[in-house]
Amino acid sequence: MIFIGERVNAGFKDIKQAIINKDGDVIKEWARKQADARADYIDVNLGTASNKPEDLCWMIEMVQEEVDLPISIDNNRSVMLKEAIPICKKPPLVNSTTAVEEKMDELLPIISEHNASVIGLAMDESGSPKDADKRVENAGKIFAKILDYGMSPEQLFLDPIVMPLKFMQEQAKEILAGAAQFRLFSDPPCHIVCGLSNISNGTIHKKLINRVFVAMLVANGLDAVILDVMDVELVNTIITAELVMNKSIYADSYIEAFRK
Amino acid sequence: MIFIGERVNAGFKDIKQAIINKDGDVIKEWARKQADARADYIDVNLGTASNKPEDLCWMIEMVQEEVDLPISIDNNRSVMLKEAIPICKKPPLVNSTTAVEEKMDELLPIISEHNASVIGLAMDESGSPKDADKRVENAGKIFAKILDYGMSPEQLFLDPIVMPLKFMQEQAKEILAGAAQFRLFSDPPCHIVCGLSNISNGTIHKKLINRVFVAMLVANGLDAVILDVMDVELVNTIITAELVMNKSIYADSYIEAFRK
Repeated sequence: MIFIGERVNAGFKDIKQAIINKDGDVIKEWARKQADARADYIDVNLGTASNKPEDLCWMIEMVQEEVDLPISIDNNRSVMLKEAIPICKKPPLVNSTTAVEEKMDELLPIISEHNASVIGLAMDESGSPKDADKRVENAGKIFAKILDYGMSPEQLFLDPIVMPLKFMQEQAKEILAGAAQFRLFSDPPCHIVCGLSNISNGTIHKKLINRVFVAMLVANGLDAVILDVMDVELVNTIITAELVMNKSIYADSYIEAFRK
Repeated sequence: MIFIGERVNAGFKDIKQAIINKDGDVIKEWARKQADARADYIDVNLGTASNKPEDLCWMIEMVQEEVDLPISIDNNRSVMLKEAIPICKKPPLVNSTTAVEEKMDELLPIISEHNASVIGLAMDESGSPKDADKRVENAGKIFAKILDYGMSPEQLFLDPIVMPLKFMQEQAKEILAGAAQFRLFSDPPCHIVCGLSNISNGTIHKKLINRVFVAMLVANGLDAVILDVMDVELVNTIITAELVMNKSIYADSYIEAFRK
């Protein structure tokens, strides 16, 4: 599983304040905590704190001063990415493009030029997909497009678009069915990713719903996830799900080994 | 979900001793506890405590004196079932037959005569199935046979045979794939059941592995399960999984409502 730590995001008050105050220690602390919790990427999101490329670059630099992990740049504007991608020490993951032609043609040149990866959201001009077929159609457009730009399937992280169970209860099945089909596009397949916590938006039993849904997603091919990597029970659920699906080798102490 | 409480089983020391001593209170206590925990069936298993039909009948009577639930008769010998099935106040579930012709022809006459249901294990003369296809082949034989005996798909609970992750790690995927196909046999489909705890036999993180695997099974059609119904976290996982699969209607307090 590729764990993408979600916490360096201006949606969280402490991060927003840190950006405004240029307090690098807060950013570094969250980068370190997530790295210690076994994050593979640190997602960096400027949110509404700023729209200046130099602020995004500052965040990335703070993370890179503290940890040796690649960055997930949570921004979909080329004016930002043109500044941010080149300063990344390791090929970043750009989060994200949709299946909209103009958006892909805006972002993929700079992404492919720097050998970066990209999250492809299975949505288009008409908005969020309502069933598995529409997810597969949108994902297929992105898949074809990244090949056009000379990228490999391994550089694509397809996202089936997780929707809140509370408001669109019928969607979870469609998300699972869509994801299962994404992995059939090529061999080796592209990655399958999602923003997990959307499933439990507005619910009381958030953590339980997250754990149950992620187990189902892993059984349908999920191999990357944007999450609260500090949520030990959630991470244990994911590594157990990968064990059940025979993606890691069984050892009695598989959890303890992961945490070492 | 149809919860089949596993606890009235002579594999547990207190139950074995209760059978030997004819101590009905122990049986009743476990029947009551499981009913309070929302069991739908009480599984009754004589184990090695006895091979006398009257002892099996005594266990069933003790359960029926205490609770109003149907019995899952955990025995596969017609000499036992001929005595036990007729004393059941509600149509019981017979646990179980295999796909072996002689076994089915031995058990199904008495089962169908009393309008009982049956668990069909997807295994045959050659033993436990090694892949999804063999599971489907065995299950299909049982499905065809129950129709021959005038039973309906709703009277059949197909079991894909859960095997221990620790010793046969590659089997979990095959179990999921098999189960997903069982539910395509008819519309409305037969039930899909399993003995869940087999998956975690011999492991350290038993409860976590049970929870993760059951979530995946529910996504693949499981609608009945033999389990420790007193395991609150496990049951919460199952009702959450059914919510995610849109089999129950979302309410913020869905867990609290279930427990009422």
